[in-house]
Amino acid sequence: MENNAIGGDVFFILMGAILVFAMHAGFAFLEVGTVRKKNQVNAMVKILSDFGMSSLAYFFIGYSVAYGMDFLSSAATISGDGGDEAYGPQGLSLIKFFFLLTFAAAIPAIISGGIAERAKFGTQLIASGVIVALVYPFFEGMIWNGNYGFQAWLEASFGASFHDFAGSVVVHGVGGWIAFSAVILLGARLGRYGDKGTAFPPSSIPWLALGSWLLCIGWFGFNVVSAQSLEGVSGLVAVNSLMAMVGGILAALFVGKNDPGFVHNGALAGLVAVCAGSDVMHPGGALATGAIAGVLFVKMFVICQEKLKIDDVLGVWPLHGLAGAWGGIACGIFGLEALGGLGGVSLMSQIIGTIVGCGFAAIAGAVVYGGLKQTLGIRLTEEEERQGADLSIHKIAANPETGIG
Amino acid sequence: MENNAIGGDVFFILMGAILVFAMHAGFAFLEVGTVRKKNQVNAMVKILSDFGMSSLAYFFIGYSVAYGMDFLSSAATISGDGGDEAYGPQGLSLIKFFFLLTFAAAIPAIISGGIAERAKFGTQLIASGVIVALVYPFFEGMIWNGNYGFQAWLEASFGASFHDFAGSVVVHGVGGWIAFSAVILLGARLGRYGDKGTAFPPSSIPWLALGSWLLCIGWFGFNVVSAQSLEGVSGLVAVNSLMAMVGGILAALFVGKNDPGFVHNGALAGLVAVCAGSDVMHPGGALATGAIAGVLFVKMFVICQEKLKIDDVLGVWPLHGLAGAWGGIACGIFGLEALGGLGGVSLMSQIIGTIVGCGFAAIAGAVVYGGLKQTLGIRLTEEEERQGADLSIHKIAANPETGIG
Amino acid sequence: MENNAIGGDVFFILMGAILVFAMHAGFAFLEVGTVRKKNQVNAMVKILSDFGMSSLAYFFIGYSVAYGMDFLSSAATISGDGGDEAYGPQGLSLIKFFFLLTFAAAIPAIISGGIAERAKFGTQLIASGVIVALVYPFFEGMIWNGNYGFQAWLEASFGASFHDFAGSVVVHGVGGWIAFSAVILLGARLGRYGDKGTAFPPSSIPWLALGSWLLCIGWFGFNVVSAQSLEGVSGLVAVNSLMAMVGGILAALFVGKNDPGFVHNGALAGLVAVCAGSDVMHPGGALATGAIAGVLFVKMFVICQEKLKIDDVLGVWPLHGLAGAWGGIACGIFGLEALGGLGGVSLMSQIIGTIVGCGFAAIAGAVVYGGLKQTLGIRLTEEEERQGADLSIHKIAANPETGIG
Repeated sequence: MENNAIGGDVFFILMGAILVFAMHAGFAFLEVGTVRKKNQVNAMVKILSDFGMSSLAYFFIGYSVAYGMDFLSSAATISGDGGDEAYGPQGLSLIKFFFLLTFAAAIPAIISGGIAERAKFGTQLIASGVIVALVYPFFEGMIWNGNYGFQAWLEASFGASFHDFAGSVVVHGVGGWIAFSAVILLGARLGRYGDKGTAFPPSSIPWLALGSWLLCIGWFGFNVVSAQSLEGVSGLVAVNSLMAMVGGILAALFVGKNDPGFVHNGALAGLVAVCAGSDVMHPGGALATGAIAGVLFVKMFVICQEKLKIDDVLGVWPLHGLAGAWGGIACGIFGLEALGGLGGVSLMSQIIGTIVGCGFAAIAGAVVYGGLKQTLGIRLTEEEERQGADLSIHKIAANPETGIG
Repeated sequence: MENNAIGGDVFFILMGAILVFAMHAGFAFLEVGTVRKKNQVNAMVKILSDFGMSSLAYFFIGYSVAYGMDFLSSAATISGDGGDEAYGPQGLSLIKFFFLLTFAAAIPAIISGGIAERAKFGTQLIASGVIVALVYPFFEGMIWNGNYGFQAWLEASFGASFHDFAGSVVVHGVGGWIAFSAVILLGARLGRYGDKGTAFPPSSIPWLALGSWLLCIGWFGFNVVSAQSLEGVSGLVAVNSLMAMVGGILAALFVGKNDPGFVHNGALAGLVAVCAGSDVMHPGGALATGAIAGVLFVKMFVICQEKLKIDDVLGVWPLHGLAGAWGGIACGIFGLEALGGLGGVSLMSQIIGTIVGCGFAAIAGAVVYGGLKQTLGIRLTEEEERQGADLSIHKIAANPETGIG
Repeated sequence: MENNAIGGDVFFILMGAILVFAMHAGFAFLEVGTVRKKNQVNAMVKILSDFGMSSLAYFFIGYSVAYGMDFLSSAATISGDGGDEAYGPQGLSLIKFFFLLTFAAAIPAIISGGIAERAKFGTQLIASGVIVALVYPFFEGMIWNGNYGFQAWLEASFGASFHDFAGSVVVHGVGGWIAFSAVILLGARLGRYGDKGTAFPPSSIPWLALGSWLLCIGWFGFNVVSAQSLEGVSGLVAVNSLMAMVGGILAALFVGKNDPGFVHNGALAGLVAVCAGSDVMHPGGALATGAIAGVLFVKMFVICQEKLKIDDVLGVWPLHGLAGAWGGIACGIFGLEALGGLGGVSLMSQIIGTIVGCGFAAIAGAVVYGGLKQTLGIRLTEEEERQGADLSIHKIAANPETGIG
C-alpha cells in the first residue's frame, strides 16, 4: 500500500506531464492556423525541434540550475530502485522532471509564436537551448525552489512569499516578456507596416482553433497537477481554471465582436491569468480574473499591432506577457479572504514578484537575442522571407501535392 | 493515506472531466467537417461560446436545481478546506461539479449540430443558457438525484428505478429531442428541399473524422468515470463502451456502404446507446446494442433527411435522440441476467424513463425555441444565410488568407 | 482501501488504454497527411474499421490464444463481481484486455500505412481479423505470457529471457515485418517506378504532423502503463520514452535536413525503439537508442523507396520493423549495468528474440497476404487505383463540397 501511494503520485504527475506535452501540439497548431500558408511547415518543425532541444537543455543543465538535482548517476540511483532516498522510489524525481520540463519547454513555444514567419530556424534552436538551460531555470528556482533568498525576503518583508501556483509569471510572464524583446530585436515582417503595409489574415481558423482546444485541454493538467501529489490535489484548482477560461472566452467574444481568433485566444488568456492564484481564489474571482485577461488580450493585441507597430504575430506578449503579469497581481487580489479566497497571499509580494519576473525576462531576452543578432543573425534573408520559411528552410510546402501553400 | 483516497477520487473525476471537455472539441470539429465551408467558423465559435455560457448557467443555477448544492460560499467552505463536511475535502464537490458540467454543456453542443448553418448566434447563446440552467438539470436531478419522487415511484411500481448510468437518455436523449423541436421550428436550410433542392455534401471528411475521434476518445471518460469514485470504477464499463462503439462502426460500415460519414458517426451511435447500461451489460450485449444503434442511425438519418424532410444537419436527432432512446430501452434488455447482464433493471422502468425523458425534452425544446422564435427570432436573414454565418456573423472566412471558404 | 488499490490499478490501466486508443487516431491522420488526396478518406475509414474488426478478433479469439482467458461467461463472472478470483474485482481483467487490445489493433494500423493507396479494402479487413485473432497473439503469448517454453529456454540458456517491456518487437517489429511482406506482395503504386515513375509528395503536412503528435502523446500511455499496476509504475519509463523521442526528433532533423516528414516520423522511430528497454535503460542510453533509430529510419526510408524500390508508402517497415528490431537489440546493450542500465538483460536473448519475432512476422505476413492474393485478391483494379480509393470505394472525396480531392 505504501508503494501504491507513491505509485499514485507517479501516475498523477505522469498524466500532468502528458497533458502539458499535448499543449505543445496546441502551440504548433495555433501557430499553423495563424501564420500564412507559406510558413506553416516551419511552425510545426520549430515547435517539435524546440521541444527536443529544450529536453536536452533542461535534462543536462536546467533542472540542476533550478533544483540542484541531476540525473547523471546510474538508472538504479536516479529511479530510486537502488534505495537512494534523495530521488524517491518508482522514479518519482524523474516524473517530476518530466512534468517540469513540459513547463520549461513552453518558453520557446511561446516565443515561437511571436517571432514567426521571419526568424532564422537554426538560431532559434540555439536560443531555445540557452533559455531553457539557464534563463528560465534561474527564475524558476528562485520562485519555486526558494533559491537566492528572494522568497524568504518577500515573506519577511510582506508576510507572504510570491505565490505563483502554476506559473502565470514563472512560465507565461517569462515567456511573453522574452518574446517581447525578441520581437522588437527581430523587427516586423516584410510588408506588414509602412506605406503599402497590410495586416496578414490567418491562414486557417480550423487549425488555429484546434491549437487552442489542445492548449485548453492540456491546461487542466498544467494547473491541477501543479500540486504534484494526490495529497495536495484540489478540485478548486480545476474549477478556477474552468471559470477563468470561461471568463476569457465570453469577454473576448463580446469585446472582440465574435472574431474567432479573439474567442479562441481569449480562452487562453483566461487560463494564463489564473495559473498563479488557481489554488487560492474563489471561482467567482477566477471568473473575473479570466474576463479581465480576455479584455486585456483583445485590446492590447490591437494596440500592439496597430499603434505600437510591434509585429508579434500570435500576440504572445499580450497573451502570455500581459495576461501573465495580470495573473500574478490578480492572485494578490482575488486570493484575499475578503474576496472569498483562501488568503495567505500578499498583494505587495505579488506585484514585486511579477515585476521582477517580467523585467528579468525582458532583459534576458534582450541579451540572448541581442547577442545572437550580433553574431549568427536572427532573421531570414529578404528573399527567404518572401519565399516563405517552408520552401526556403524545409524545401517543402504545407500541402505539397497540390502545390498550394 | 485517508487523504490519498480522496485525492485519488479527485484525480479520477478530474480525468473524466478533462476527457469529456475534450469531447467538446470533438463536437466542434465534427460540425466543422459536416457543414459547408461558409459556416465552419460559426461552428467553432458556437461550440466554444456555448460551453462558456453553459458553465455560467450550470455553476450559478443549474447545479443547485439538480443537486441542491451551490458554490456561492467562500473558497475555504466550498473546497472543504474549512472542514465543511457537506462539500468534502480537497474540492471533491467542485470536481464533481466540473465533471457534471461537461455533461450539461453537451446539450447545447448536440443541438448545435442540428440547427447549424442558419441559426442566429445570439439567440442560440441565450437558449443554451436557459436549457443548461433549467431544462436539463430538472430531468437530471429527477433521475440522478432522486428529485420529485419519480425514481422512488418506478422502484415501488416495477422493482427497479430507471437505470441510466452515463446518460443515454439524461444527456443524449434529452439533447437530441430538444434539437428535434429546435430543428422543426427553425425550418430547413435555403435550397435544401423544394424543386431545386439538393443535399449539401460535407466540407471536409478529415475534420469530420477528427471530431468523431475526439468524441470517441473522450467517451471512455464519459462512461467509465460516471462511477465517480475509484471504489466504484469497473473495467466492465470500459469494455462495454468499446464493444458498443465497435458494433456501431461495423454496422454503419456495412449498412452505410463504406460511407465515411456513416462509419465515423456509427461509432458515436454505439457509444450513445451504451451509456445507460454500460455498467450492467455483458460485452456481447453491448456489441449488439451498438450494432443496432449503428443501423438505426444510418437508416433514420436517411429517412429524416430524405422522407421526413427534417433538415437536421449533423443528424443529431437520430444520433443522440433515437440512439439514446434505444440505449435507455436496451439497458432493460441486455442488462437482464438471462442475457448475461448483471440484472437489477426493469424493462418497464426503462421504457417509462426513456419516454418521459425524451417527451419532456421535446416539449421543453418547443417551449424554449418557440418562445425565442416569437420574440428575438431564431433564424438568420436569407441574405446572411446565403452569405454564410462566417462572414455575416464573424466577418471572417475559415481560410481567410486564400479567401476560400 | 483494499478496493481503492484495485480501483487505482483499473484507473491506471484505463488511462493507458485511452491513450493508446488515441494513437489510432494518430495512425489515421499520419496516413491522411502522407497519402495523396484521393486516398485520404480511405485511410481514415480503414483505420477505424480495422480497429473494429481487431476488437472482435481479439475479444473472441486472440486474447485467449495469448493468455488463455476468455470473456464468454456472464458479466458477473468476467467483471469479478461474482467473486471469481481468476478475473479479479472491478473488471480488472477486462481493463487489461482493453489495454492489450489497443496494442493488438496497432498491427493492422501499422500495416495500413505501408499498403496504402492501392490495397483492396475488404481483403484488408479480413487480413486484419486473421492477424489479430491468430498471428499476433501467438507471438505475444510466447513472449508476454511465457507460452510454448520459449522464454524459459532463453532464460536457461542465456541467463535472461527476451525482455520487451512495451513491445518494440512484439508490437512494432511484428507489425512492420508483416507489412514488409504485404507491401512486397502488393507491388508498387501505379506510376511510382519505371520510366515515368515519380515520387508522390504527401498531401498535407499539418495532418501528417497531427497524426505524429497524437501518436507521441499516446505513446506515454503505451510505455508507462505497460507496468499494468501502480505498484510497478516508474517515472524512469516516462523519461526514457521522452529522451528516445527527443533523440529521434533531433537526429532526423539533422540527417533529414529539416524535412518535416522525417522530423515528425523521427520522433516515432525513437519511441518505437525505446519500448523494449524503457524500463531498464538510463535516459542517456534511451537518448542514444532514439537517435540511432532516427538515423536508421531516415536512411532506410530513402534506401527502401529509392534503391530497393519497395513502395512502403509511410515507411512502416523502416519505422516499425527496423527501428523495432533495433529497439529489441538496444535493450540488450543500454540495459546493461555497465552502461548505466538496471541490468538483468542478455544481449544474446535480445538478438534471438528479435530475430524470431521479426522472422515469424515476415513469414506469417507472407502466408496471410499470399493466401489472400491467390484467392480474393489484395489489390484494387488499375482503374480504381487511378481514380483513387476514396471515390472508387467510398464514393466520396475528402473535401466533397469543393470537389477537391
